[in-house]
Amino acid sequence: NNKYRVAVIPGDGIGKEVMPEGLRVLEKAAQRFDIALELTHIDWASCDYYLQHGDMMPPDWKAQLGEMDALLFGAVGWPETVPDNVSLWGSLLKFRREFDQYVNLRPVRLFDGVPCPLAGRKPGDIDFLIVRENTEGEYTNLGGVMFAGTEREIVIQESVFSRHGADRVLKFAFDMASSRDRRHLTVATKSNGIAISMPWWDARADEIGRSYPDVTIDKQHIDILAARFVLQPQRFDVVVASNLFGDILSDLGPACTGTIGLAPSANLNPDRSAPSLFEPVHGSAPDIYGRNIANPIAMIWSAALMLDFLSGGEGSGRAAHDAILAAIEHVLREGPRTPDLGGSASTTEVGLAIANLI
Amino acid sequence: NNKYRVAVIPGDGIGKEVMPEGLRVLEKAAQRFDIALELTHIDWASCDYYLQHGDMMPPDWKAQLGEMDALLFGAVGWPETVPDNVSLWGSLLKFRREFDQYVNLRPVRLFDGVPCPLAGRKPGDIDFLIVRENTEGEYTNLGGVMFAGTEREIVIQESVFSRHGADRVLKFAFDMASSRDRRHLTVATKSNGIAISMPWWDARADEIGRSYPDVTIDKQHIDILAARFVLQPQRFDVVVASNLFGDILSDLGPACTGTIGLAPSANLNPDRSAPSLFEPVHGSAPDIYGRNIANPIAMIWSAALMLDFLSGGEGSGRAAHDAILAAIEHVLREGPRTPDLGGSASTTEVGLAIANLI
Ligand SMILES: CC(C)[C@H](C(=O)O)[C@@H](O)C(=O)O
Ligand SMILES: CC(C)[C@H](C(=O)O)[C@@H](O)C(=O)O
Repeated sequence: NNKYRVAVIPGDGIGKEVMPEGLRVLEKAAQRFDIALELTHIDWASCDYYLQHGDMMPPDWKAQLGEMDALLFGAVGWPETVPDNVSLWGSLLKFRREFDQYVNLRPVRLFDGVPCPLAGRKPGDIDFLIVRENTEGEYTNLGGVMFAGTEREIVIQESVFSRHGADRVLKFAFDMASSRDRRHLTVATKSNGIAISMPWWDARADEIGRSYPDVTIDKQHIDILAARFVLQPQRFDVVVASNLFGDILSDLGPACTGTIGLAPSANLNPDRSAPSLFEPVHGSAPDIYGRNIANPIAMIWSAALMLDFLSGGEGSGRAAHDAILAAIEHVLREGPRTPDLGGSASTTEVGLAIANLI
Repeated sequence: NNKYRVAVIPGDGIGKEVMPEGLRVLEKAAQRFDIALELTHIDWASCDYYLQHGDMMPPDWKAQLGEMDALLFGAVGWPETVPDNVSLWGSLLKFRREFDQYVNLRPVRLFDGVPCPLAGRKPGDIDFLIVRENTEGEYTNLGGVMFAGTEREIVIQESVFSRHGADRVLKFAFDMASSRDRRHLTVATKSNGIAISMPWWDARADEIGRSYPDVTIDKQHIDILAARFVLQPQRFDVVVASNLFGDILSDLGPACTGTIGLAPSANLNPDRSAPSLFEPVHGSAPDIYGRNIANPIAMIWSAALMLDFLSGGEGSGRAAHDAILAAIEHVLREGPRTPDLGGSASTTEVGLAIANLI
């Protein structure tokens, strides 16, 4: 067995509350399935660190983390003291880019025992994957302000897409779709309104799609696509989207299955040229921090995705992933439950319950 | 009484099916409330016209329409023959810009008799307004492709915001919020990821907000905001958003109330320096065109919004608006219903039923 080196980065807010539960379950699973982990605890990449050092991370962050096999990440952001664009561009968004984690994979699934906000949907009705481009597109700090501070002020914000960047994530999504039963890929677009990048994105999807004759493609404008997440969630199998559209859809999808407290994500460097990053979708949630009521399941599920990825989806890593998922399913069905799911259990209680089932 | 000059532009697809019902109800209401209308029927601004003339509109479109008080618009788009960006940029998006319709006002409301896709919500729980910036922002054809056709291909897409453009729509939204009971304004943003325009947008909202101490402001990132439309729709009163975010939210909001077949919109030039435009949100819907099953209510409601705006929200125009709304509510409760609402009535039957109640 290899020894996997994992950096543990709790970050801010409820990231610090859910991480211990992620680790509790991770270590239990590693022990049971005989997976050797070497964990390095990182207390930077947080707003606390920023307030002390004027930067989110030490200058040698890349050397320190670059040697890792994976980063297990809580959440970053504390807008009361550090503007979100500063904290995020100084940490998470840097990891995604500098470690070339070009796929952000976000499963959306309705579980037994989780009250669904959509009327009449049952487990099995909603089960799809969002493949989000994770390094370029709409998230940039390019552009600027002209006539700043005057009535004539004009702001330019640039989005940047590349064939390299679009093709690889589209290929990943087509591969994913073609490995599934339904072989159906929804491509998010907005080519009717955003006149340069989106028609081009559509053309790239068509071009890549030519190599996947077994996959059906459905291009949908982001407005109606969002509406259909609510009205017809059963129609989705794999959804591929640009950075921004993927961001929106991957909060909306989990909301449609009951709570974003369950949604995990895998920021993948599929070439393994640098560490991949695994994090809950929910963020630092300042409004509920400090009460030990955050749902730790997204964090725990993210740890499971990490084990699966580290092992290449095989052997003990896959078995550990499946065992964690089974334990999550059991707890969602039988409790205990945190308040977001209508229960009154603490973060710790849910983490313990899941760990005990492994 | 003034005579209002209205251009009637059915456009494409179901735009051509719902428009006759919009007119049926409009003419009935005009007659009953003694409102003089002069209707001009326009068969351009359609993909059929484009296929014949190579352009969406005749060269003198602006002179022809500029004299109008309002444009009643169906829907444009027939992607099978004309790319959406060509048809939309050549018609609807041109109207919005060249007639400076800088507010796109879109009410979201759950009606009695409309099955809600969200579990456990009843009429009254969802009732808010989306104020969408409608002339600038993310919808541009600025930018371009470098290394086109090669592996190194790079695409730049620019968004353009101006203080002039942001401030006026923010003011409109604050005014709207401050005239309502709850005096609450949600500002859609994504300042944690989109690093130039969105932090600037947040600052403009704060600045304009200083003149409205009676309105509470809640800035939310678009990802979690979309999630909350599903999870906590009762928390919204007025929502203000950029062009793109407003577009997404104003399909998602209506989806949360059952069907986008009900959602109307008012593209307003509040200064009345050029005609305003009233249209259903649903678009041309090629998939259901030709069967006379499209729900005409969004079109009819849009006509009601037009009468209200033309009369300055007073007198006979307001009365006609209210009478149409009451008739819509009655039909939603008692039927007939089109298939999107679980019924089997035709577009025409629903239009007739509403007209008969006026
Ligand atoms: C057709 C399209 C360009 C348009 C838009 O995106 O504005 C439509 O979706 C709308 O919401 O009016
Ligand atoms: C925190 C924020 C920058 C981030 C994003 O927008 O990517 C988050 O919302 C996510 O989805 O991981």
